[in-house]
Amino acid sequence: MSDIKKVVLAYSGGLDTSVIVRWLQETYNCEVVTFTADLGQGEEVEPARAKAEALGVKEIYIDDLREEFVRDFVFPMFRANTVYEGEYLLGTSIARPLISKRLIEIANETGADAISHGATGKGNDQVRFELGAYALKPGVTVIAPWREWDLTSRETLMAYCEEHDIPVDFSTSKKKSPYSMDANLLHISYEGGVLEEPWAEAEDDMWRWSVSPETAPDEPTYIELTYTNGDITAIDGVELSPATILENLNTIGGANGIGRLDIVENRFVGMKARGCYETPGGTIMLKAHRAIESITLDREAAHLKDELMPRYAKLIYNGFWWSEERKMLQQMIDYSQRNVNGDVRLKLYKGNVVVVGRRSDDSLFDESIATFEDDAGSYDQKDAEGFIKLNALRMRIAAGKGRNLLED
Amino acid sequence: MSDIKKVVLAYSGGLDTSVIVRWLQETYNCEVVTFTADLGQGEEVEPARAKAEALGVKEIYIDDLREEFVRDFVFPMFRANTVYEGEYLLGTSIARPLISKRLIEIANETGADAISHGATGKGNDQVRFELGAYALKPGVTVIAPWREWDLTSRETLMAYCEEHDIPVDFSTSKKKSPYSMDANLLHISYEGGVLEEPWAEAEDDMWRWSVSPETAPDEPTYIELTYTNGDITAIDGVELSPATILENLNTIGGANGIGRLDIVENRFVGMKARGCYETPGGTIMLKAHRAIESITLDREAAHLKDELMPRYAKLIYNGFWWSEERKMLQQMIDYSQRNVNGDVRLKLYKGNVVVVGRRSDDSLFDESIATFEDDAGSYDQKDAEGFIKLNALRMRIAAGKGRNLLED
Amino acid sequence: MSDIKKVVLAYSGGLDTSVIVRWLQETYNCEVVTFTADLGQGEEVEPARAKAEALGVKEIYIDDLREEFVRDFVFPMFRANTVYEGEYLLGTSIARPLISKRLIEIANETGADAISHGATGKGNDQVRFELGAYALKPGVTVIAPWREWDLTSRETLMAYCEEHDIPVDFSTSKKKSPYSMDANLLHISYEGGVLEEPWAEAEDDMWRWSVSPETAPDEPTYIELTYTNGDITAIDGVELSPATILENLNTIGGANGIGRLDIVENRFVGMKARGCYETPGGTIMLKAHRAIESITLDREAAHLKDELMPRYAKLIYNGFWWSEERKMLQQMIDYSQRNVNGDVRLKLYKGNVVVVGRRSDDSLFDESIATFEDDAGSYDQKDAEGFIKLNALRMRIAAGKGRNLLED
Amino acid sequence: MSDIKKVVLAYSGGLDTSVIVRWLQETYNCEVVTFTADLGQGEEVEPARAKAEALGVKEIYIDDLREEFVRDFVFPMFRANTVYEGEYLLGTSIARPLISKRLIEIANETGADAISHGATGKGNDQVRFELGAYALKPGVTVIAPWREWDLTSRETLMAYCEEHDIPVDFSTSKKKSPYSMDANLLHISYEGGVLEEPWAEAEDDMWRWSVSPETAPDEPTYIELTYTNGDITAIDGVELSPATILENLNTIGGANGIGRLDIVENRFVGMKARGCYETPGGTIMLKAHRAIESITLDREAAHLKDELMPRYAKLIYNGFWWSEERKMLQQMIDYSQRNVNGDVRLKLYKGNVVVVGRRSDDSLFDESIATFEDDAGSYDQKDAEGFIKLNALRMRIAAGKGRNLLED
Repeated sequence: MSDIKKVVLAYSGGLDTSVIVRWLQETYNCEVVTFTADLGQGEEVEPARAKAEALGVKEIYIDDLREEFVRDFVFPMFRANTVYEGEYLLGTSIARPLISKRLIEIANETGADAISHGATGKGNDQVRFELGAYALKPGVTVIAPWREWDLTSRETLMAYCEEHDIPVDFSTSKKKSPYSMDANLLHISYEGGVLEEPWAEAEDDMWRWSVSPETAPDEPTYIELTYTNGDITAIDGVELSPATILENLNTIGGANGIGRLDIVENRFVGMKARGCYETPGGTIMLKAHRAIESITLDREAAHLKDELMPRYAKLIYNGFWWSEERKMLQQMIDYSQRNVNGDVRLKLYKGNVVVVGRRSDDSLFDESIATFEDDAGSYDQKDAEGFIKLNALRMRIAAGKGRNLLED
Repeated sequence: MSDIKKVVLAYSGGLDTSVIVRWLQETYNCEVVTFTADLGQGEEVEPARAKAEALGVKEIYIDDLREEFVRDFVFPMFRANTVYEGEYLLGTSIARPLISKRLIEIANETGADAISHGATGKGNDQVRFELGAYALKPGVTVIAPWREWDLTSRETLMAYCEEHDIPVDFSTSKKKSPYSMDANLLHISYEGGVLEEPWAEAEDDMWRWSVSPETAPDEPTYIELTYTNGDITAIDGVELSPATILENLNTIGGANGIGRLDIVENRFVGMKARGCYETPGGTIMLKAHRAIESITLDREAAHLKDELMPRYAKLIYNGFWWSEERKMLQQMIDYSQRNVNGDVRLKLYKGNVVVVGRRSDDSLFDESIATFEDDAGSYDQKDAEGFIKLNALRMRIAAGKGRNLLED
Repeated sequence: MSDIKKVVLAYSGGLDTSVIVRWLQETYNCEVVTFTADLGQGEEVEPARAKAEALGVKEIYIDDLREEFVRDFVFPMFRANTVYEGEYLLGTSIARPLISKRLIEIANETGADAISHGATGKGNDQVRFELGAYALKPGVTVIAPWREWDLTSRETLMAYCEEHDIPVDFSTSKKKSPYSMDANLLHISYEGGVLEEPWAEAEDDMWRWSVSPETAPDEPTYIELTYTNGDITAIDGVELSPATILENLNTIGGANGIGRLDIVENRFVGMKARGCYETPGGTIMLKAHRAIESITLDREAAHLKDELMPRYAKLIYNGFWWSEERKMLQQMIDYSQRNVNGDVRLKLYKGNVVVVGRRSDDSLFDESIATFEDDAGSYDQKDAEGFIKLNALRMRIAAGKGRNLLED
Repeated sequence: MSDIKKVVLAYSGGLDTSVIVRWLQETYNCEVVTFTADLGQGEEVEPARAKAEALGVKEIYIDDLREEFVRDFVFPMFRANTVYEGEYLLGTSIARPLISKRLIEIANETGADAISHGATGKGNDQVRFELGAYALKPGVTVIAPWREWDLTSRETLMAYCEEHDIPVDFSTSKKKSPYSMDANLLHISYEGGVLEEPWAEAEDDMWRWSVSPETAPDEPTYIELTYTNGDITAIDGVELSPATILENLNTIGGANGIGRLDIVENRFVGMKARGCYETPGGTIMLKAHRAIESITLDREAAHLKDELMPRYAKLIYNGFWWSEERKMLQQMIDYSQRNVNGDVRLKLYKGNVVVVGRRSDDSLFDESIATFEDDAGSYDQKDAEGFIKLNALRMRIAAGKGRNLLED
């Protein structure tokens, strides 16, 4: 093949990436470095060490990236009220650039000339991993086994395991699911299986992080979130780290049946795909962030953000986190958040996130002007006449010159 | 004053607009024509006739506009998945252009030279009414009593009633609420009162159209909506007229605690204002329309719509329905809907609208390509490599020329 | 190889595509159908027949597509004032979808299962040809010899010619240029050679369609263009067909040194490339179209078009003419042109296109309002006060609440 | 009237604003502070002192704002390649926020409670002055005499002068023109007079800053501009201050017949207006800035800027310089310029600005990849196949499922 000497692999410790370790060693006759990240997926990462060792891996990286993940990726994304195609909170997408970054850092530390991952050739993740890798280390070689090998069925894969002494119990519990899943602190996703039929309702026992609205408590839960420069810094008055905040919101949200989503989405590679997602904390965060912005953000600032959001979301979905255009948008978004401070009070109840209060020392809500009562001259209603007349002028001229604005 | 001969008034039959009838007659010494529309606000409109007659009005128009409202205004708006500021479904905004249109038609029929309305000088509705009026009849005079008169407190208004023999029971039940309200088939809104404090939770007995999620049934309701060219044409297989569809969805949605919203929004005239809304049917329609589009709309068509939606929403919110730019966007949106056909199945439960299935003869979902199983060559995974490499090329070149895409 | 039976080739009659004919016959052992289009490139297309016959081609298509090209591609594009990256008038890009369309039509007529073209693997044209082909005939096979064969130098190509009895004088005059060129009624382009150094000035004898401003006449030329629904329909009062109009404008423009451009542009495949272009007629059309729109188009309609134009231009540049999103934008653009009627008077002088007059029966220019003289009450200057105050309100509130809008 | 104590007037020293001084003193019985700015309009500002003194003004401000104007307003605007409605370089618009800023600073220094200006009620300048003033001092009173007084004809104005002992030779030379004019370092503008008829060609002796292309030299002038972070910092290798750079470019450009423009534009207040502009230096700067960006800016960064530019231009045109949304866009734009460094070589000839070279140490132009010659493996042409196939996939699926992308 080529002359790859050492490759860093994004290694989950599961069966598929264990096969990849061996396959890389054999196919490329190269050293494999494994990298396993704790992004809050809810499974132990430390067991990956022994498995990697068993496969003869000498350089093993196991990192807890939870705080970095939430602080530098999830929170910046939520500053933009980011939603892909009106629904998806980008739980998988936003984790990929961080993994790419670590893969490349480790490649640089270990002198590796290639990176590898276990994403298939049909999905978005291969794109996200590889765009990140190429952006951060342009000369790197990327090995995507699923695009190369012939182990394309469960049977051939199992045969390979047997032939190469890979213990099948490397398969993690997660993989016993009929679904293709991905999890991190922001969400867990489900694809494949019965979901491949868009008319079929998702099975109730598929969901892992949340109770159903039906089985959620009959009493609502109230929480108060404190924002500083657009990020949540405290829950119910208690200051917490970013990852801890998201963990707590996942717990509270999941307990109240919040954050389930079932959609058909458009992949960057060109096909439509059905996906189910649980994003309890993120669903709360989106609602709450809009609420704190509603009193602290200038109208046109908010509208500019809203108009650019779909584009920003698409960049993240498509894997362009490290691109210049994403960074330009981020500059604008982050700047807009300097007065997004204050508290939001929420009621959580059986799948519903209801904003019941918002307050801020930086509020732009002016009760003296907005009131239906006497405003003591804060606002001169007669100003509205001129405002309307000049806003109408271009239409009045057009109609006056004979254009029919009703039927034209 | 000026030489107004006849004025058409948007007349609800309530106390405020009854006062306006008399005030116009006295102040402008002119004939008043009343126009009362049934937009599905849930109150009888026929009683307005006797009240207008009692005020000496000779030309009285009472129109049932429900079908036109839903068919020509609500449905076109929902084709765009329209939401203002991420939350508001524009229930009040979308009714105004129709009222303007009828005011002007009646002015033309009756030879009136002016129109009048009961909206205040602080709100958006004055803008919407008047932009519509000026666009459709550029030489019309608009009389906005709330911007002119000195009846700015309840006391002065009552004194005026007494002085001018206006029966105070003209006050409709709706007006006894502490809130300023507006209703039509799409929604009912609440402003003022305790809502003027954004930290205060809305009182539970304020809401009129929906039960709370807490009191909604413990069993979910399933419905199936059929779409034709982006509009709902049948519920559970039964073809219905547009207004009937929205009425039915309001009933079903309201019974399941769906569609309550509590926000602070940015008015066109420049201030922030708190508003609460009940939009049961609209909330269902938004979710379902996205679902049917998710399988029938091309990806980039969907993204283009998403990027332009905030702008389209703003045009409607600000009152520019009859503007050239709104009509241009509508051309584009309507064109995009020609294949948006099929069925969406929904589960409604205690405030939640859950999509549980979508299908279409015009579906672009390609199971043979999307599958995790063997795709029999429908998709060549190796194509992804070139796709990624060329998408990465500009970043690889930049990094290769020394730019640090990580820290720059 | 594969089992291709018949392939339709976009055939210029030049050396490169003649080699491709033979290479396809040999490599794929298949029938080759040639298609040669007259798009106004300024070279005879009929000679291609004999050359194709000499190569053993039995089905030979030679089409005059000039009117279709201008009417259905160039004119619609100019309705949007389309410019890529602020400079490029898309002369090559806009011809490609028409060629794709004919390739596929001919493939359908002749029962061919593949199409082929002579574009290289580095450029945009391969993308444009192939996106068009796949969109119009999804199962078609595309053969791009430059991406497949090993004839990658002039030497190997010449050796192949000798070996396969391809007369080297098949090389057209155009190809003797040191530049890679492409021409059609809209423009002629130059790439390669000394242009590969962006600091090097283009040589004066490179340009073929226009005189230099220095050698253009010392007297200006005045012309008057008449627009109907956004398209030019007459020059100096004489109605002409679309292609004739563009031919005439090329002649007049070229004689006055108009339309030369020298840029570095960003290709869809990811690299920057230097290109020089002569677009005499197009340069005139762009300026004139903006002028007629300036008096006939509503302000916000014009601004909406301006904001979406870069995106529309990019779609054409990238080859997405047949995509849903381009068609959606076209719907909007075409609708906006229904009142874009009238005359524009231009002065052409040594590279300059100067608008010296515009008039229209559909003009929205209202002299009685715009005048600095007495306007007899057409416009009430006092309206401006309210207009300004409410436009300022959100900033006044922000500043009033302590935000420093100067330094913040 | 109201209880205004002291008002700061934007005072040109001309007849109109001299009348305003007296009118303010009389009408409001208040102290007038005059502020006269040198923005490079080409007239002495110092004579305004004696005139103000003669009118009894005690606090007189005369400031040279040229460097601040170019550095903090003109240059930032040109970083965005800003053009309003495809043509106008915003010469007047960009000066207004600086004048507002100084008016408010002086109001704060002198304890004034009002500001005043000489702009009419029909134009954009009143909006720009007043939006700026309200943003920076929300409680300020604005007095716009042209909207208030009855001196609406030349005759009544002259009568007022006579009556109030205002020497008519206060009229500056500029005002003897039949045109309404405005000048600063970026441009000079002409409105009114024969220009009110859009079909009438502008008279040749109207133009003041440039020779016509016809009378410009027969030999071209070559210049080299050096960019640092998107701003010009040197001409022909000589480092110069911002204002000096613009002055020099005006001189060179004007001598070569560059920068004349004749358009009909859409005013914020709702009408169309004819304007002629001379912007010699700005015209050069726009062309050169695009050229340096063409080799140093990432493709998608450039496209994002292009798509947002019309909106940014509109904000400046409409007077929203101090708004949050303009500042957000500026953050993004400025960030994008950090690698926009290098040299642009230009040929100026009889109205033409021709880019003949661009180079940069931060260039992203990769000759080894772009070349038509052997690229030694820098680029694998086979990558293009996968790139195209996946870009085509959504269209192939649509067509494969029966959609007719040609005629649909």
